[in-house]
Amino acid sequence: MNELIRKQKDIRLLQSISAVLEWDQETYMPGKAIDWRSEQLAWLAGQIHQKETVPEIAALLKKLDDYSPADDREEALVRLARREYRIASVFPEEYVVEKTRHLSQSQNAWAKARQADDFNSFRPFLEKNFDYARRDAEYLGYEDHPYNALLDLYEPGMKAAELKSLFDPLGEYLAGLVRRIGEKEQVRSDFLNRSCPVDKQEALGKEILQTIGYDFERGRLDATAHPFTTELGPRDIRVTTRYDEFEFTSNLFSVIHEGGHGLYEMGVDEDLAETFLGQGTSLGIHESQSRLWENLLGRSRAFCDGCLPLFRDTFPDVFGDVDEETLYRGINRVKPSFIRVEADEVTYSLHVILRFNLELALLEGGLEVKDLPEAWKEESKKLLGIVPEKVSQGVLQDVHWSFGLIGYFPTYALGNLYGAQFLRTMKRDIPDLDGLLRQRECAAPLDWLRKNIHSHGSVYPAGELCRRVTGEDLNYRYFIDYLEEKYSRIYGV
Amino acid sequence: MNELIRKQKDIRLLQSISAVLEWDQETYMPGKAIDWRSEQLAWLAGQIHQKETVPEIAALLKKLDDYSPADDREEALVRLARREYRIASVFPEEYVVEKTRHLSQSQNAWAKARQADDFNSFRPFLEKNFDYARRDAEYLGYEDHPYNALLDLYEPGMKAAELKSLFDPLGEYLAGLVRRIGEKEQVRSDFLNRSCPVDKQEALGKEILQTIGYDFERGRLDATAHPFTTELGPRDIRVTTRYDEFEFTSNLFSVIHEGGHGLYEMGVDEDLAETFLGQGTSLGIHESQSRLWENLLGRSRAFCDGCLPLFRDTFPDVFGDVDEETLYRGINRVKPSFIRVEADEVTYSLHVILRFNLELALLEGGLEVKDLPEAWKEESKKLLGIVPEKVSQGVLQDVHWSFGLIGYFPTYALGNLYGAQFLRTMKRDIPDLDGLLRQRECAAPLDWLRKNIHSHGSVYPAGELCRRVTGEDLNYRYFIDYLEEKYSRIYGV
Repeated sequence: MNELIRKQKDIRLLQSISAVLEWDQETYMPGKAIDWRSEQLAWLAGQIHQKETVPEIAALLKKLDDYSPADDREEALVRLARREYRIASVFPEEYVVEKTRHLSQSQNAWAKARQADDFNSFRPFLEKNFDYARRDAEYLGYEDHPYNALLDLYEPGMKAAELKSLFDPLGEYLAGLVRRIGEKEQVRSDFLNRSCPVDKQEALGKEILQTIGYDFERGRLDATAHPFTTELGPRDIRVTTRYDEFEFTSNLFSVIHEGGHGLYEMGVDEDLAETFLGQGTSLGIHESQSRLWENLLGRSRAFCDGCLPLFRDTFPDVFGDVDEETLYRGINRVKPSFIRVEADEVTYSLHVILRFNLELALLEGGLEVKDLPEAWKEESKKLLGIVPEKVSQGVLQDVHWSFGLIGYFPTYALGNLYGAQFLRTMKRDIPDLDGLLRQRECAAPLDWLRKNIHSHGSVYPAGELCRRVTGEDLNYRYFIDYLEEKYSRIYGV
Repeated sequence: MNELIRKQKDIRLLQSISAVLEWDQETYMPGKAIDWRSEQLAWLAGQIHQKETVPEIAALLKKLDDYSPADDREEALVRLARREYRIASVFPEEYVVEKTRHLSQSQNAWAKARQADDFNSFRPFLEKNFDYARRDAEYLGYEDHPYNALLDLYEPGMKAAELKSLFDPLGEYLAGLVRRIGEKEQVRSDFLNRSCPVDKQEALGKEILQTIGYDFERGRLDATAHPFTTELGPRDIRVTTRYDEFEFTSNLFSVIHEGGHGLYEMGVDEDLAETFLGQGTSLGIHESQSRLWENLLGRSRAFCDGCLPLFRDTFPDVFGDVDEETLYRGINRVKPSFIRVEADEVTYSLHVILRFNLELALLEGGLEVKDLPEAWKEESKKLLGIVPEKVSQGVLQDVHWSFGLIGYFPTYALGNLYGAQFLRTMKRDIPDLDGLLRQRECAAPLDWLRKNIHSHGSVYPAGELCRRVTGEDLNYRYFIDYLEEKYSRIYGV
């Protein structure tokens, strides 16, 4: 067992070296350094693959066949070791190295293409990325649909069919709610587009991160084109945000969102930190943490009450004529828009369902990459009722596909569902949650999350964790109940 | 030959991964991440050591015993391959890994100790670092003095005895010049301590870097406790600086100095970039480049004339009552002070000689680390005529010993000597150098340096390069002539 733990630490160490290089590539690396960086990452990918697939691991696992784990942690340690060994072993090292080199270049090509609003320069990369995805699925093996093989990498055990059975009724409900809201009187949000100088936004972002409990001795905040959270070591969990002088909420909710991811990683029990258990258990659960902070707590009326004085101190000209209810309504305005990461709580999951539908079609072969911009417009029209003219506001908006992350988007919508279900239990356990948020006091909800979710790392799979915390399986009704209550109050629907 | 080139690229790739991690550690890493970072660097050091010492290299080199190199480059490629293989092979891998882990911790301990002005917390690390230095020398082997083994790592072929024969008369001359200047009327420099907001200093630093030809598409500028230059890849050469609102020259000459190092690395012929030849040939030559830009050009009257309008634009309140001659005299003020990196051109080499004397005594065993703060004071009194009260202004001021860089300091003084000798030839080849600098036109001197020095990378050893560029061996008289001419004009000595 100790030998297995040591091997996991070695792999985590190498992965964290890659994470440093990737973080640097996104934040500070000079443009012309990309080729060499791709070589560095490709070499590391090969090393990681070697460490993941050394025959000693197979031998260790074989020895553990008859071993009775002492507790949940030991059981999980061996389970994850088996899973990661199985996944890594199906890929030839050459393939992993080539793919990594290509994806680093692809990411760079995407960033330029998005800036230039030019799909064609990125198209050959994207075609190759979907080829890789199909080959990944073949290597991994699957039942029913190649998508299941990819999905399992991010949300272990989840199936495309199960997602469809969640997303079809959810999409229908959400599209209906958007229409109902559209017929009502709209809320005021002009003040959110007033000038907020970036340096003050940065200071405010740091203050908010500290408010929710993010530890700057074990992390930091930087600016990137696409906000993200990354673990460079067990005590080095960094978040990024983006700034727009005339879009106050862009930075605000990015820091709370990424802060939520960061708190999850920071809250994992130190004893687990150096093993495979030392990370969030699935991307869906991870996203439940970010979206719980961003939306369920961060966009609550109570937290608005708590934050408005801070906003007024920082930007007196912007929030001077704004009261708590106006702020609350403004930041919860529902309006179909092009950019997923800036979408409101109602339309957000529709953006995810759009990508899920396109990914399925691309993998099945019914859709080709060259036709993607048009297909995007059609899906957008159908789900959101609007059509982006620019590819930078459509198919090029997200970084994921450029990194080869296919099968990843659905976890965002799962996060909304898990989050709403967790919130319901949290509210039962912390009856005065609103009173605390009104004081910008976040210790109690953070402690609750640490105890019930964060500290366990990957010990419990997502479904089991959900049952342990809430007493039942994932149920999308809690998310719908939450939206109904919130938006009937705001819009009178 | 191609196989040897491929092996060198592999090693350079791994070294550059370490460089990314080290750069991050100095610039942005959160404090509590240090333990994991040390593990990452230690693992990489082991990997690099393995790559440097694989038996295939010995076999390749053996095959090349009878090979006649086609040109200087091939000759150098094999020569450096032999040298690096010999150096790497003497150390057991375990030793390299342990030392790297320790040094990363030591660097961290130094930074804290310096901040707290507390020698004792750093003492055990420093003792271990000098132990490592002695063990390094034993592993490497040496004639005459263990110091020669260390010195050779940074300035190949240089000997302690040769340094003494340079430094003894140089030290005597410099101490005499300091005394002569001290007796004359002092120059005005009050304006250099006026308030210059850091954000404007940063913009000015970037402008100056661009002026001298630094390419921001292949590099960047950040702030660190101790300015440095590092290569994270052939097209990723980063520099750092430090800011003090009331010390205008601290940032200004840091950026020019580090920019000089950066230009050297950026100017290496692309064909050499991925081999051992793709770096500066010795630290003495490297320092000649940084100090040539910082002092010989950067502190010249002509460049003052060129820069004053820029300074006035950036800080009208600071430079409104300052004319060119006042600026020139102010930035060339000679006054013994505690901090090496802020020393003027006359006292600077005395700081280096101080460290060289102490390093020799520590290696010989005549001095113990516990007595170092006192010994520092004595040497400082003897050479500079002043005694620092705080260890942060004395023995703790430099980062080098915390990184185990012992035998490194002399290369700084060598850089002054090489630089003055190069300048004399450059002036012969560019008769209107002053006229160009007066326009802030730096293309001609940069082209001259690229052609004569930078492009060759490590093809020629320092001594040979000096002969090729200037037609003669290193001669410290050029530095003395330079100082005499400059300071007789400023101080009338």
